[in-house]
Amino acid sequence: MTARPANTHQARLLKLLRDGGPNSRAQLGDRMDLSRSKLAVEVDRLLETGLVAADGLAASRGGRRSHNIRLNPDLRFLGVDIGATSVDVAVTTPELDILGHLNQPMDVREGPVAVFEQVLDMAGKLKAAGLAGGFDGAGIGVPGPVRFPDGVPVAPPIMPGWDGFPVREALSQELGCPVMVDNDVNLMAMGEQHAGVARTTADFLCVKIGTGIGCGIVAGGQVHRGTTGSAGDIGHIQAVPDGRPCACGNRGCLEAHFSGAALARDAMQAAQQGLSVELAGRFETNGTLTAADVAAAAAAGDATALELIREGGTHVGQIIAGLVSFLNPGLVVIGGGVTGLGHNLLAAIRTQVYRQSLPLATRNLPIVLGELGPSAGVIGAARLISDHLFSPA
Amino acid sequence: MTARPANTHQARLLKLLRDGGPNSRAQLGDRMDLSRSKLAVEVDRLLETGLVAADGLAASRGGRRSHNIRLNPDLRFLGVDIGATSVDVAVTTPELDILGHLNQPMDVREGPVAVFEQVLDMAGKLKAAGLAGGFDGAGIGVPGPVRFPDGVPVAPPIMPGWDGFPVREALSQELGCPVMVDNDVNLMAMGEQHAGVARTTADFLCVKIGTGIGCGIVAGGQVHRGTTGSAGDIGHIQAVPDGRPCACGNRGCLEAHFSGAALARDAMQAAQQGLSVELAGRFETNGTLTAADVAAAAAAGDATALELIREGGTHVGQIIAGLVSFLNPGLVVIGGGVTGLGHNLLAAIRTQVYRQSLPLATRNLPIVLGELGPSAGVIGAARLISDHLFSPA
Repeated sequence: MTARPANTHQARLLKLLRDGGPNSRAQLGDRMDLSRSKLAVEVDRLLETGLVAADGLAASRGGRRSHNIRLNPDLRFLGVDIGATSVDVAVTTPELDILGHLNQPMDVREGPVAVFEQVLDMAGKLKAAGLAGGFDGAGIGVPGPVRFPDGVPVAPPIMPGWDGFPVREALSQELGCPVMVDNDVNLMAMGEQHAGVARTTADFLCVKIGTGIGCGIVAGGQVHRGTTGSAGDIGHIQAVPDGRPCACGNRGCLEAHFSGAALARDAMQAAQQGLSVELAGRFETNGTLTAADVAAAAAAGDATALELIREGGTHVGQIIAGLVSFLNPGLVVIGGGVTGLGHNLLAAIRTQVYRQSLPLATRNLPIVLGELGPSAGVIGAARLISDHLFSPA
Repeated sequence: MTARPANTHQARLLKLLRDGGPNSRAQLGDRMDLSRSKLAVEVDRLLETGLVAADGLAASRGGRRSHNIRLNPDLRFLGVDIGATSVDVAVTTPELDILGHLNQPMDVREGPVAVFEQVLDMAGKLKAAGLAGGFDGAGIGVPGPVRFPDGVPVAPPIMPGWDGFPVREALSQELGCPVMVDNDVNLMAMGEQHAGVARTTADFLCVKIGTGIGCGIVAGGQVHRGTTGSAGDIGHIQAVPDGRPCACGNRGCLEAHFSGAALARDAMQAAQQGLSVELAGRFETNGTLTAADVAAAAAAGDATALELIREGGTHVGQIIAGLVSFLNPGLVVIGGGVTGLGHNLLAAIRTQVYRQSLPLATRNLPIVLGELGPSAGVIGAARLISDHLFSPA
């Protein structure tokens, strides 16, 4: 598929069909505020391009029955979510429903060539399973800042070898379809916006706590990426004056005090200091500890694990409190690997935000866990490329 | 004038004429990407409404000479900027050039009825001076959060008696013209965007340091007001853990450590403790001290005054550093009464932001003083109402 909508009416029609599914011409006309004849012109043009297809007769609203239309059911999008230590690849329908989803361990530090080999292999497996003949477009998320217009990572701290690599161009050639690239946290926000907990919210923050920590910002329904693509990079906001040294060279950064990596480090320290029998036992068995071990220890009632989670949540909450006062969002979504820490983490974050933010800004502010888990990123990636393809060229 | 543009083409034409001044049909057609005949239709309709007027022949571009058009030169906007302790009222041309500007001391705590009486009196003086027959619209800024759609202040901490007062409706009746209401800091940002230092920037922060402290957020060219109108309220972000008690009930808020009021308090304390001969002398003469006294003492080389400014700038810089990492703006503008502290303040803010923000976010980040001084708010107010009037009803 190389066709693109010819004007903003067609673009809006395509997005309505993507977000709302098959619909009758009559209802689409109502929602677009277009006359029946003007709508017919645009729909007919879209039918000619092959972007949409007829889908039988709609239920009667009295009078002549309207024809249903839908996005061409053969369209396939590829969603790729590259993390620090694993990669998700999924194929979706034109409505962004997942048909197949693979997750594999991976080390982003091996560089783009090795990582893309693995991604292409995974995409090939999804094709071989009969889920897609080819891909009409692909969205790619990477765990660092991206110069959005040309899809190039810029100075990504945890991605050596990726700085300036032409991800968009390289993958577009390999896959033979249009590609868009974005920061992984922005894609998580777009996923939760499309199919998750943020469906009805135009202004929200999506805080992803994984190996590192970042924040997707959605304002007026649009992702805010900032002047150089680094918006939402909250891991290096100062959480503790003169606090712990951070890899970035400063002290007291949020990420140095709480993230998946910081939590694992603190848990291992506690185990070695004999502060927790539960953590020490797991450390002895596995030779290392992760955030998942802390979650399991907390679930077993371990006081040290619970305290680590509470402390971490307080640090994140303190930063989020400032961002809430600053941006006055309608919703805060917490996602990422560390959400395995669940409601203990959420409780600590909420306590801090509700205590510290302006009352006016928290009057109607839900703070919730994301709904989609590891699907949020790949759905967001599919949404990214569909937003591009469903806009006038 | 009650006419409004009938469609988005007309709205765009009006804004082009406002921001760029009189122009030829030929050049407007180029900038709008409209054919000569389509443009002629829209221009003719606007001429009929009286919103635009013919303005002679344009310079030749070869071939037939094009006609100039401009906004109706008789249009008049009223810009009102209500501060904590003074009020600015100005009348502008349709291009938002100031024809007359009055400033008077005022106490916002006297409540809306007394304040509006004074505002109407000042507007009457501008009329009596022959600067306007009547007003086609008025923009009003108030020093607190505003529920934007209906123009009502919401829980404004320094404005007792204003909570829930229907400012928009009441002033619209008194003035007999459309009125829009916004937070004063947002208007300062819009003023600097229209005619000041932020003219070419779509993403910037405008930090206003006066009696209190606040921040206007412009993203994608639009002011971001937040879900309940409190976006940018940075005065109560925590600057110092367990720091000074703040009027809001928390400790360590930015405003408790630096603002016009905090600076005056600290200066008086220093004077009484005998730390500064310069400040003590001024305190004895006037019985009180303000930010202006600190500025004057600093200019005279007083070490204590310089230290107070440096400390304050460091606190503001620390908060701005976080906001810069978070939102990745292209420019930071510092405005408000405290800018009398000038380059000493700016140097302290810059040092902190460049030290503490992500390098990627500060790579091309100018931090500058506002250009318009007390005119920024009234120009922003005129821009606010013109944005409203120059949009389809």
